[in-house]
Amino acid sequence: MKKTLQELAEFVGGRVAGDPSVLIQGLDNIEGAGPRDLTFAVEPHIDEARSCKAAAVMLPEGTGDFPKPALYVEEPRAAFARLLELFTPKLDFSAGVSDKAHIGEDVTLGEGVVIMPFAVVDDHAVIGDRVTLYPHTYIGQYAEVGEDSVVYSGATVREHCHVGRRCVIHCSAVIGSDGFGFTTKDGVHTKVPQVGNVVLEDDVEIGAHDGIDRAAMGSTVIGHGTKIDNLVHIGHNCKIGPNCLIVAQTGISGSTIVGHNVTFGGQVGTVGHIHIGANSVYAARSGIIGNMPEGVFCAGFPVQPHTEWLRMQAAMKHLPELQKKLKQMEKRLARYEKESG
Amino acid sequence: MKKTLQELAEFVGGRVAGDPSVLIQGLDNIEGAGPRDLTFAVEPHIDEARSCKAAAVMLPEGTGDFPKPALYVEEPRAAFARLLELFTPKLDFSAGVSDKAHIGEDVTLGEGVVIMPFAVVDDHAVIGDRVTLYPHTYIGQYAEVGEDSVVYSGATVREHCHVGRRCVIHCSAVIGSDGFGFTTKDGVHTKVPQVGNVVLEDDVEIGAHDGIDRAAMGSTVIGHGTKIDNLVHIGHNCKIGPNCLIVAQTGISGSTIVGHNVTFGGQVGTVGHIHIGANSVYAARSGIIGNMPEGVFCAGFPVQPHTEWLRMQAAMKHLPELQKKLKQMEKRLARYEKESG
Amino acid sequence: MKKTLQELAEFVGGRVAGDPSVLIQGLDNIEGAGPRDLTFAVEPHIDEARSCKAAAVMLPEGTGDFPKPALYVEEPRAAFARLLELFTPKLDFSAGVSDKAHIGEDVTLGEGVVIMPFAVVDDHAVIGDRVTLYPHTYIGQYAEVGEDSVVYSGATVREHCHVGRRCVIHCSAVIGSDGFGFTTKDGVHTKVPQVGNVVLEDDVEIGAHDGIDRAAMGSTVIGHGTKIDNLVHIGHNCKIGPNCLIVAQTGISGSTIVGHNVTFGGQVGTVGHIHIGANSVYAARSGIIGNMPEGVFCAGFPVQPHTEWLRMQAAMKHLPELQKKLKQMEKRLARYEKESG
Repeated sequence: MKKTLQELAEFVGGRVAGDPSVLIQGLDNIEGAGPRDLTFAVEPHIDEARSCKAAAVMLPEGTGDFPKPALYVEEPRAAFARLLELFTPKLDFSAGVSDKAHIGEDVTLGEGVVIMPFAVVDDHAVIGDRVTLYPHTYIGQYAEVGEDSVVYSGATVREHCHVGRRCVIHCSAVIGSDGFGFTTKDGVHTKVPQVGNVVLEDDVEIGAHDGIDRAAMGSTVIGHGTKIDNLVHIGHNCKIGPNCLIVAQTGISGSTIVGHNVTFGGQVGTVGHIHIGANSVYAARSGIIGNMPEGVFCAGFPVQPHTEWLRMQAAMKHLPELQKKLKQMEKRLARYEKESG
Repeated sequence: MKKTLQELAEFVGGRVAGDPSVLIQGLDNIEGAGPRDLTFAVEPHIDEARSCKAAAVMLPEGTGDFPKPALYVEEPRAAFARLLELFTPKLDFSAGVSDKAHIGEDVTLGEGVVIMPFAVVDDHAVIGDRVTLYPHTYIGQYAEVGEDSVVYSGATVREHCHVGRRCVIHCSAVIGSDGFGFTTKDGVHTKVPQVGNVVLEDDVEIGAHDGIDRAAMGSTVIGHGTKIDNLVHIGHNCKIGPNCLIVAQTGISGSTIVGHNVTFGGQVGTVGHIHIGANSVYAARSGIIGNMPEGVFCAGFPVQPHTEWLRMQAAMKHLPELQKKLKQMEKRLARYEKESG
Repeated sequence: MKKTLQELAEFVGGRVAGDPSVLIQGLDNIEGAGPRDLTFAVEPHIDEARSCKAAAVMLPEGTGDFPKPALYVEEPRAAFARLLELFTPKLDFSAGVSDKAHIGEDVTLGEGVVIMPFAVVDDHAVIGDRVTLYPHTYIGQYAEVGEDSVVYSGATVREHCHVGRRCVIHCSAVIGSDGFGFTTKDGVHTKVPQVGNVVLEDDVEIGAHDGIDRAAMGSTVIGHGTKIDNLVHIGHNCKIGPNCLIVAQTGISGSTIVGHNVTFGGQVGTVGHIHIGANSVYAARSGIIGNMPEGVFCAGFPVQPHTEWLRMQAAMKHLPELQKKLKQMEKRLARYEKESG
């Protein structure tokens, strides 16, 4: 795709200042845009855009002098979004069930589903209206996928699990793998059957390679509107509240109960069987080892209030000199004790 | 599934105290059970069950007064397990090889195998009796899967790898990906061929998204009875002993040798080329940076005895005040030095 | 495979000292070799090989007395590599497109491609010459895979992403999953469309279960020659320089820019939107929380120069006794203050 700046201005209903014949071949943000790209800027980023590498910049109507070809519009964000659609060829999936998919017995298929080659919907599963199943997805026996949900390639929803409406399950995610439960006798580990399931409520997003383990009995639950990044582990019987954000590589151990609106930064870990209160933020790498109240901002391992963690980190850097100073003081003190002894 | 408490009592051969017409729609543990569920309790949890939310509680015959509808039986655990079977519809897989699977040339298939649609068994592979291969599994050339093992959807066993008997390989696990081996010259990394394999001994369980890398040469070995949780990385040429437990998101670097009966908590990491002695426990987040003896309980990074780690963590919390106190003492000491100088 | 030591000597053009009829059934390195294996040793490892468990050892011509059957050759490494080929049955994949693969519309297939059963190449994708696609790979619409690249089973390259030449993408890796981008209003998270892509330059290796997220707009880029181990997360809009090494379970947050020749040890984490200078090494578990210069060797969380981290770790171990000593000194000082008061 190649368009002149003038052509793009006409497409979005804006006006050009500077050379209208500049060729635009791509779109990117201020940092990433190169000499063949258009970017956009709104306050407070307009100054930063003056020295960027883009061929031209889309700006809000009314911005003053600008050192590059500019495309002025009323609403840069909205206009840029329209250009993104223009530059990104639309995907086109045929509605219906591919004759290369496998649909088991007693399966319920909603209207307007898209089921691609080599997807498997096993016996007794229920697929809601307008669900999209990419290639190599496996929906197990008696599992349900709610309407308008999308399951990307290689993802599995194991038997008896329920996926809500408008959920997105990214590539190779696993919903409903066995919880890690064993009894040990004489050093030999025997599997505890994991006969529960997983329930994803509505509007949940599950990242690539997430593993959400099925409950030993009952359900592991991910609350509505919760969004989970890549490579996250959720142990069996966890109940994660609504509207949480769980960043990549975090692990929540089994039977942990999390309130609503909790953010876990990347690589957080928790022990199991605890309650973590609502409306809280845990910084990246937090290690949570006990029950936590609502409304906190914490960091560290073991976790502590974020300001205390900062103070402790600062003090730790001075630890070697502190150790040295203590030794010197001890000598001085010993000398006085000797003198005055 | 909906049953009255009376119907369930008849099914398990127990007796009801309180309203026998209570409708039971699900089963769950004490914490998870809601007002339509039956739960069960044995000592020391019976008191906790008095105030739970369950509609009714299964209890050992002989338990005293109880404030909820109760179902008394001789063996609550065993009776509850029978109810779990009643409430969970059984999965039903046709024996045999799906005509939508792909079986390569010179493949050996045992008796009673279940090979589901879009599974691939590549040339010269050997599949033991009663093995189950879910959809989208790939068993590479010359690989072997021992009798009674189950390989869940999306998992791969790459060429020349051996899976023992009664193993469970969870969804999207990868057995035998290349080890991370490169030689670097002038800043350019050249791949060292990884021509070894992976051997899983009998009764091994491999979690969802685990990656067990094949040896550069020889074998990466997971000892019999070892159970591995989700998202674990085992580097090339590791030898993990029998009956270990490796919790989620742990990474064991290449060529590390681990004795029997070692437990690694979640998110543990180790350097490579070390020996880790048998019969030990490493707490979550341990970072193991050298050889370790047998029979230890350790924590921290770098790893240290667990009690020392606790002591160090406690001291660290007081570090900022310790720093302040040291400054004050220094002033006092300086004053005395001046006065007595 | 069973060969006598004499037969192997003839195969590689070497000479035997000691019993030439020793039966060799496998090959392994010094540590791993057992009593039926041949190993090899060059300086400085020849002494170590004297007491190994191997049945016989391949040595450089000119090595002195040796206590085991030995096979002398001019170039042990090269000769051993030839034996590895002899002992490892070659894989044999038919060239061409399996009639069980699915090729979409308007797809470009290069010469000499190997496309295995149940691989999916979606509409408008471009597959270069001699590319190998294993079973259950999914190449999305408008995606491109460069010549001589290999995509292992279960891996996905999502729509619009570009894979360079001679790349290796290991099992179940995901190239181009959505970046983790949401706007939050009144506690509800709304997805920001991720319309960019991923570009893997030439000679990149992507480990099993890696997730390389597509850019919100523009491209997430992995520079040429960069090698990534298993279970690594690369956030949206990252630009990773050429010839980096990223060890297992590391997570690089979104919009981070990394120079060339940077090594990240295992389980490293970074915040987003930072610049990490070239030619640096970050030890395992480093937590990088801000911009970093070129040419550093760092460790710890928050990251600091490696030598300082070592010093701090050493001091931390003495923290409890330091605390005790400070208390004693305080008492002594107080006594003197009292006495001289």
